[in-house]
Amino acid sequence: SKFWVPYYIMLKWLFSLLIGVGTGLAAIFINLAVENFSGWKYAATFAIIKHSYFVGYFVYTLFNLALVFSSVYIVTNFAPAAAGSGIPEIKGYLNGVDTHGILLFRTLVGKIFGSIGSVGGGLALGKEGPLVHTGACIASLLGQVTCGCAAGVAAAFRAPVGGVLFALEEVTSWWRSHLMWRVFFTSAVVAVVVRSAMNWCNSGKCGHFGAGGFIIWDISGGQEDYSYQELLPMAIIGVIGGLLETPIESSFLAYGKQCSLSDAHTNPEKVSIGFTPGALFNQLTLYITKWRRTYLHKKGRRVKIIEACLISLLTSTISFVLPLLRKCSSCPEVEANSGIECPRPPGTDGNFVNFYCSRDKEYNDLATIFFNTQDDAIRNLFSAKTFHEYSAKSLITFLVMFYSLAVVTFGTAVPAGQFVPGIMIGSTYGRLVGMFVVKFYKKLNIEEGTYALLGAASFLGGSMRMTVSLCVIMVEITNNLKLLPLIMLVLLVSKAVGDFFNEGLYEEQARLRGIPLLDSRPKQIMRNMNAKDACKNQKVVCLPRVSRVVDIVSVLQTNKHNGFPVVDRGQNGESLVIGLILRRHNFSDFVKPASSKGKSIDDIHLTEDELGLYLDLAPFLNPSPYIVPEDMSLAKVYNLFRQLGLRHIFVVPRPSRVVGLITRKDLLLEEDSNTVTTELQSTSVRG
Amino acid sequence: SKFWVPYYIMLKWLFSLLIGVGTGLAAIFINLAVENFSGWKYAATFAIIKHSYFVGYFVYTLFNLALVFSSVYIVTNFAPAAAGSGIPEIKGYLNGVDTHGILLFRTLVGKIFGSIGSVGGGLALGKEGPLVHTGACIASLLGQVTCGCAAGVAAAFRAPVGGVLFALEEVTSWWRSHLMWRVFFTSAVVAVVVRSAMNWCNSGKCGHFGAGGFIIWDISGGQEDYSYQELLPMAIIGVIGGLLETPIESSFLAYGKQCSLSDAHTNPEKVSIGFTPGALFNQLTLYITKWRRTYLHKKGRRVKIIEACLISLLTSTISFVLPLLRKCSSCPEVEANSGIECPRPPGTDGNFVNFYCSRDKEYNDLATIFFNTQDDAIRNLFSAKTFHEYSAKSLITFLVMFYSLAVVTFGTAVPAGQFVPGIMIGSTYGRLVGMFVVKFYKKLNIEEGTYALLGAASFLGGSMRMTVSLCVIMVEITNNLKLLPLIMLVLLVSKAVGDFFNEGLYEEQARLRGIPLLDSRPKQIMRNMNAKDACKNQKVVCLPRVSRVVDIVSVLQTNKHNGFPVVDRGQNGESLVIGLILRRHNFSDFVKPASSKGKSIDDIHLTEDELGLYLDLAPFLNPSPYIVPEDMSLAKVYNLFRQLGLRHIFVVPRPSRVVGLITRKDLLLEEDSNTVTTELQSTSVRG
Repeated sequence: SKFWVPYYIMLKWLFSLLIGVGTGLAAIFINLAVENFSGWKYAATFAIIKHSYFVGYFVYTLFNLALVFSSVYIVTNFAPAAAGSGIPEIKGYLNGVDTHGILLFRTLVGKIFGSIGSVGGGLALGKEGPLVHTGACIASLLGQVTCGCAAGVAAAFRAPVGGVLFALEEVTSWWRSHLMWRVFFTSAVVAVVVRSAMNWCNSGKCGHFGAGGFIIWDISGGQEDYSYQELLPMAIIGVIGGLLETPIESSFLAYGKQCSLSDAHTNPEKVSIGFTPGALFNQLTLYITKWRRTYLHKKGRRVKIIEACLISLLTSTISFVLPLLRKCSSCPEVEANSGIECPRPPGTDGNFVNFYCSRDKEYNDLATIFFNTQDDAIRNLFSAKTFHEYSAKSLITFLVMFYSLAVVTFGTAVPAGQFVPGIMIGSTYGRLVGMFVVKFYKKLNIEEGTYALLGAASFLGGSMRMTVSLCVIMVEITNNLKLLPLIMLVLLVSKAVGDFFNEGLYEEQARLRGIPLLDSRPKQIMRNMNAKDACKNQKVVCLPRVSRVVDIVSVLQTNKHNGFPVVDRGQNGESLVIGLILRRHNFSDFVKPASSKGKSIDDIHLTEDELGLYLDLAPFLNPSPYIVPEDMSLAKVYNLFRQLGLRHIFVVPRPSRVVGLITRKDLLLEEDSNTVTTELQSTSVRG
Repeated sequence: SKFWVPYYIMLKWLFSLLIGVGTGLAAIFINLAVENFSGWKYAATFAIIKHSYFVGYFVYTLFNLALVFSSVYIVTNFAPAAAGSGIPEIKGYLNGVDTHGILLFRTLVGKIFGSIGSVGGGLALGKEGPLVHTGACIASLLGQVTCGCAAGVAAAFRAPVGGVLFALEEVTSWWRSHLMWRVFFTSAVVAVVVRSAMNWCNSGKCGHFGAGGFIIWDISGGQEDYSYQELLPMAIIGVIGGLLETPIESSFLAYGKQCSLSDAHTNPEKVSIGFTPGALFNQLTLYITKWRRTYLHKKGRRVKIIEACLISLLTSTISFVLPLLRKCSSCPEVEANSGIECPRPPGTDGNFVNFYCSRDKEYNDLATIFFNTQDDAIRNLFSAKTFHEYSAKSLITFLVMFYSLAVVTFGTAVPAGQFVPGIMIGSTYGRLVGMFVVKFYKKLNIEEGTYALLGAASFLGGSMRMTVSLCVIMVEITNNLKLLPLIMLVLLVSKAVGDFFNEGLYEEQARLRGIPLLDSRPKQIMRNMNAKDACKNQKVVCLPRVSRVVDIVSVLQTNKHNGFPVVDRGQNGESLVIGLILRRHNFSDFVKPASSKGKSIDDIHLTEDELGLYLDLAPFLNPSPYIVPEDMSLAKVYNLFRQLGLRHIFVVPRPSRVVGLITRKDLLLEEDSNTVTTELQSTSVRG
């Protein structure tokens, strides 16, 4: 045993290293693929539209359609668990709730190739959530899912500290400090791997892979200070962030529960607080999700594929045609060495896109954000020293359209993250507010780009409700620490406003999928209940220690419980609870199914002979599950579940006596007994 | 009840706000005072040494002595609990262990004025640890100690996110996410308060308060990239950090337990791995702490005061006389607009100190770091574009002397933080390594200042063993995100090396003071023990539900247990454990002592009549303490303690039957029943 401990520890560290390298490489692969597909697409389109906009539109749409089709085909046919962002499922997994097939190898493959297709195909979704899932899948191969989540965030945003905090704050409800230390290591490895790859790409070996892909939206040139007058508009951004995300989530909620639809009708103050466009979106998304729910879910795979393709066509059309309708603006006069070029030189990234403009020195502000990869669009929205680049009309058009697309796209059967779309939406209204502030406070040194960043932070804060990790991620992706207090401010406001209405995005999504995540605090009603009340209508099914296989099988088939108390007779013939056996451990000697790999009792076929055997359950059971006395407050039981990440707990009658009372001092006793042996040893050496 | 919940929540948020404002103001007050005292001191000294170095030395020493005397006098006479950093005690408090008087109001006052004296008096200690304690004291007045810790760190380092993480990682063993959210708010408030104060001071109203005090050692001009060759010297810095701190801590250990002295003798590999100066320091500190322990602890207050004064004299003499012995160097040739001035213009802060130099265009490199406030010294060590500013000889002299002073100063009866001394030591050897690297890799763009920063990170990582929070704090105080991967690297190495030898600084200090902090993971031996083993030699003292006061008093006086099971008879006459009563709750109807405010059973005087009364304990007991079955693995019990922050647990016999089995789904039930009522309501409205 003494020999195995360091070996075991080293193995865990090695695994952490491998997870870091693996996730880093996966992220590089996805980024390279997405950037190159997008690069080819835009290069081809821009080349063709010199001759014909119609052919250009056709090629652009076809390219997108092919990519989205490949994505949705892979996902629906080979890896259904790869659809969506995967974060709620991972969160559930780390809280003790398995979702079918969420960590399979083929889910990993589906996620990687699926997100290349869906992001490369220009849908209104991001690759960051899927990267977290990818990291978790890689880590699951080595049994360290938490590390994988952190690695995923670290790789997606090049935010190693943010990754650690994300895993800590968002994903796990319980945490151990030595785990943090290993997660930190994994994130550091990811940072090194990604940096090496980017250095390698800087020499031009990576095709169209340039400034995009790996997110660092450097806003070093922007505003770094703030005056007190600005705090009000910044708080307003926070409030908008809290409000705007509400409708998206309400629609998710409605997806799961019909009643929230009626809620919106009967609860007038909820709608009226959300300002008009919010309420409009609310209705819109409700109808769409309702339609999707009643229509799509019954028709199976092919309809899912058609749906995704239709949305791809819609997205391509809107992003191509809308900028065509917009009149070009003439380029601003810029100083020679400001680094701003207008229009951007031929190529596929840069600000001030010349699209359907009659003259050379013009740019199309809507195309600058719409007819672009999302990464570049955000970079353009964040850009400093570009006052009045966008007209309010363009920004509002984009906001409405992109928001609608994000709502419609969410829920299709492709890998889809909500981070980057959130940043897009947030930075658009942030920049809008910034434009007004620039008009109002003309004397101050105000940057619209900084307001765009704050808008992004507010929207994410309002939807994901992470505080510390989101704050660190925002600081890391903008590479500017001086904005920290401002980001904190908008996050606080937007989370407060959002919390007033509903729960966080991931919690809602988890509920939608039937994953029983526990809130951070018990419900008020639980304070007045005790443990017994929680299992009042329950019939506890006990298994005797030695049972016939056929009896066990019938017990397993006649109910859906996941855990069973095992009872035995004590020395004096009294019955004693000797442990807990889990459903999946019952036949661990015949087969070894883990429910995340997807096998159930019905998949196991036993012969007549086997059914007649007697089985001693003692080797398979958990001999000391956690117990609570029947009159313990349910709120206390709740905390026990959450803090320890439990799945089952036994409610037992009040004990008749106390064998002992353990205090912290008793747990330090070992320390002293160790010291005693050390002292003895050293005495013998001295002697 | 429905009315009180929002009221209660608002009150908590208001308290968080007040804590933030209070801690921010306290930090500003301490900083202003320290900076002004130091400013006057150095201004006076520099003015006088133009005429006479002897008189200058005399005034300098006297000034320091007066400040240190005031500090030690306040602490020993009015607030003994204010000595030291206070972080181990706070950590203990948040883990359920009270230290006598640690959160009293007078401790707060003693801490504030004590640390002004000790830091202003130029001792080799910092004000950051005491500020954390100050924050906790302020917060304790409002019952939110965790928020106070975070606020303290946020104020001390101007690192709001670092503060949140510090509270999370270092201070509490358990954590709830809604607490994080409030802690985040408090930190944000502190950041705003501190920033406002600094803005106000920028107009020159704060006397000598300038760039110093509030730590931001901006290293924006420095090296932002690294080549792979540099990873080796950086890893070496990490190793040094892990090794160098070892001797300090060993001395602390020896302070508490004699046996570690013999350990150092009989355990040759431990000493030989630590390189020579480390081993030397080890012996040195061992003798000093031994002397202090056998001599000082018996003589009381006056000796403590004399000790602190002697150390002040020693510190003043070393920091004044050693630079005198050093030959001045001539100023480097600098470009006109590089912002470097040599020697610094008359004033009290800046680089390139002209001290005892014969010519005008010269500076004294040892005085630049030694004859300066610590904040300025660190700023000078971190400074970029100042190649070859320090000679290796000066740095080594300073390292040896300051390290010795830090060791000697630690343990005196003044408020003392270890953060800034750690940064001083770390940045000195970091800069030393940087100098060698500059020599070796002449072609690379290497900054000695960046290596100094890495050295600081490595020393703190080696001594405090925090990973994520320290990393964020280092990034926040240097205001440069690009160094993040490098800081992560050295932290990982130094923590790994340090962990190989011993525990973190705070853990060791806590053990020294008899605070039973639990490690992050159970001891290996606990896996083979069960709960019953841990309380084998225990005689459980039960109290009947209704007892005579005289019996209770005799139970309380005859043993030192802190909690007692209360038993009663059930309906059928069988005995039932009905709860746990704590020592301090036994007489809560007569008096209301809280042990942190320091009252014990002997302080309570009861009359004969009162002693004869019968007391029903039922209203005072905790009716459902946590219970574990007697055969539960002790490792599991350990985790329960740590994750829930428990102080007592009952070990009970195996249950004879299971009343029910609670799963996560059962805990979500409330949700559904709520939904049902909502639906009913909305139906009625619709109807």
